[in-house]
Amino acid sequence: MMEKEFTLTKEQQVEVERQLAFLQRGVVEIVPEADFRKKIEKSVVTGKPLKIKLGMDPSAPDVHIGHTVPLHKLRQFQELGHEIQMLIGDFTGRIGDPTGKSETRKQLTDEEVKKNAETYVEQYGKILDMDKVTIYYNSEWLKPLQFEDVVKLAANMTVARMLERDDFEKRYKSGQPISVHEFFYPLMQGYDSVALDTDIEVGGTDQKFNLLMGRTLQEAYGKEKQVALTLPLIEGLDGERKMSKSLNNYIGIDEAPNEIFGKSMSIPDELMIKYYKLATDLPMEEIEKLEADLADGSVHPRDAKMNLGALFVEMYHGKEAAEEARNYFQTVFQKRSLPTDIPETKWEGESPIWIVDLLVELNMQSSKGEARRMIQNGGVKINEEKVEDVQLQVEVEDGMILQVGKRKFMKLTK
Amino acid sequence: MMEKEFTLTKEQQVEVERQLAFLQRGVVEIVPEADFRKKIEKSVVTGKPLKIKLGMDPSAPDVHIGHTVPLHKLRQFQELGHEIQMLIGDFTGRIGDPTGKSETRKQLTDEEVKKNAETYVEQYGKILDMDKVTIYYNSEWLKPLQFEDVVKLAANMTVARMLERDDFEKRYKSGQPISVHEFFYPLMQGYDSVALDTDIEVGGTDQKFNLLMGRTLQEAYGKEKQVALTLPLIEGLDGERKMSKSLNNYIGIDEAPNEIFGKSMSIPDELMIKYYKLATDLPMEEIEKLEADLADGSVHPRDAKMNLGALFVEMYHGKEAAEEARNYFQTVFQKRSLPTDIPETKWEGESPIWIVDLLVELNMQSSKGEARRMIQNGGVKINEEKVEDVQLQVEVEDGMILQVGKRKFMKLTK
Repeated sequence: MMEKEFTLTKEQQVEVERQLAFLQRGVVEIVPEADFRKKIEKSVVTGKPLKIKLGMDPSAPDVHIGHTVPLHKLRQFQELGHEIQMLIGDFTGRIGDPTGKSETRKQLTDEEVKKNAETYVEQYGKILDMDKVTIYYNSEWLKPLQFEDVVKLAANMTVARMLERDDFEKRYKSGQPISVHEFFYPLMQGYDSVALDTDIEVGGTDQKFNLLMGRTLQEAYGKEKQVALTLPLIEGLDGERKMSKSLNNYIGIDEAPNEIFGKSMSIPDELMIKYYKLATDLPMEEIEKLEADLADGSVHPRDAKMNLGALFVEMYHGKEAAEEARNYFQTVFQKRSLPTDIPETKWEGESPIWIVDLLVELNMQSSKGEARRMIQNGGVKINEEKVEDVQLQVEVEDGMILQVGKRKFMKLTK
Repeated sequence: MMEKEFTLTKEQQVEVERQLAFLQRGVVEIVPEADFRKKIEKSVVTGKPLKIKLGMDPSAPDVHIGHTVPLHKLRQFQELGHEIQMLIGDFTGRIGDPTGKSETRKQLTDEEVKKNAETYVEQYGKILDMDKVTIYYNSEWLKPLQFEDVVKLAANMTVARMLERDDFEKRYKSGQPISVHEFFYPLMQGYDSVALDTDIEVGGTDQKFNLLMGRTLQEAYGKEKQVALTLPLIEGLDGERKMSKSLNNYIGIDEAPNEIFGKSMSIPDELMIKYYKLATDLPMEEIEKLEADLADGSVHPRDAKMNLGALFVEMYHGKEAAEEARNYFQTVFQKRSLPTDIPETKWEGESPIWIVDLLVELNMQSSKGEARRMIQNGGVKINEEKVEDVQLQVEVEDGMILQVGKRKFMKLTK
């Protein structure tokens, strides 16, 4: 379907450019760019919001930071006044995996679908304004389709093009079986866009094929073609592989504040800015400034990471929880950090023994006077607990750790 | 599903062997042979007929001799008391080609489907006992299938196995598009066998893949698996390519008796026995005798072919028509046959001229007496018409053909 050309006022042109620039954040690809501009122009001129679709699998309602990347993009569309279509792919969920081979594609009851959808709404509500989101269940239009309709649907796609999809191609070439029904999943996703008159569909780079399927099918059904907008897949805490629950390299948005904060601290330095851009709503100018500050050393990566952790906790548990998590981390983790290469000494002397004698006999202090002063200054710890009493009689235990000052450690064995 | 083993009486064993031997006629492959035997055994022991399926395309009701090959096999099954399932594939006919590319796969109305089916019944009734044939329309069980059922159906087959089908493989490798919906056709055909509890499905060798699909799907749906019985594709009158309407190398069973007879006479000698075996019901012993007689020269191929033509006409138009066609052929065609290398002579003599003078001047007879006797004996023809009058004055015309006896010809030019 041809789109109309519009004549824009100067003001409208400025608005179009503003939206295009704002929506560029973190994007990998917009296919095709020209249609994207036309759609934004049309919306600006007519005042009608665009329809932005995001599909989700109803069988996996545990959302992690990786899943939130497209949500932040939707939030940006929301901020510009566009309309969000949240598509729950319940039709396939209700079927499950008909081959019975897939464990991840379990058959869901109506109740489970509904419960999972509610979980999404609750979790996504932390990023999106859910009052401005419409939720759709695709069984509404897929379930009533009859064999004849399915034949006509499938006629719009060739086998060769299906096998161009990355995962299909790999499996086909390596001789792994692809069931014929798997070809339906992209067709269903594309047909959802036909049913919903979607303008723009958002997804990870691994979704590009499916997003373009929507375009193809909309054209076949005489509708205006959607634009595909892809976003990066975020690496998990290992810094290498895509964040996923099965790889245990994820930060779940429903995890406890201290968990979220602590896991955030283990994000590799070089990925931090990517997380900021894709998984927070911090304005781009601030992220760019932070990037410069990190580059010239005026901000320490650890501090930047703490701020990121605090942003995550704030998003999912509120401001207060964020402050508490930061404090907890600082008191418990940051101050408690023990080196991993503590020297060991087998203790064969007496026990209990006066702490001052112990430090001198272990050569951790050169004199009793020095040892006494160190204790009085709070510089001596047993098992990470400060020794407050200079007269302390120590019951030596296997594995006991002594610390003198910041860097001197000794582990006792018996 | 496992089939029961039976203990057969001596008599039953003999009957099983009789059926197996009888049904071997012209068969290319039975897959698997062991199941075929088991099914026959079960039928002999229980007295229950087997269900033999033949599918047909409702869009092409013009039956030619090539189409009748499986019908003769069905007739043999009928003679053994088995039950014939004639399956009209009306479901796909009603859909047509959803891509609009195929001219042969036109969308049919209910009325057309019905009319074509009636044509089948009428035409097939010339070979089969239609009172013992049940006609099924697959839209009965395919039309009500919903998307969910289709997904489950398709889950039983892999893309790789689909692409092993000869025509798909060729098209895929040569880069010709295969629409995804084309994968449904073999699935539909296989599902028909599920719906009909078919025991044996009969088809040409090009149908093997589809016949085995029925087996696969029956197993998936917890049914007893059918056996695939394939038959040769018969070459057309050109002796090379499969008989087909589009190649114009066919004998249509609805053609006029003289057409059928005449076309039969142009069957290449080396294919005659194949036609006898596959497209007539002449008992095998007679065919084998004929084969021997042809080999030792005691029967002339022309006569064997005339008998074949007469058999065809008898099958489709009755005994009387067969005799008439044979006579017509003999009087009109056989006696009229002119050699292709007739010598030419430019006639510069007088015209009209007495026939006796003409023959002598052309050196076709050595004397007027000889010429006169030859005419009186009916041995002289002009333009294939016998010269009855010895006094005939001939008006010489360009292209006029003179014949004396069986082998002497002359063409006159002016």
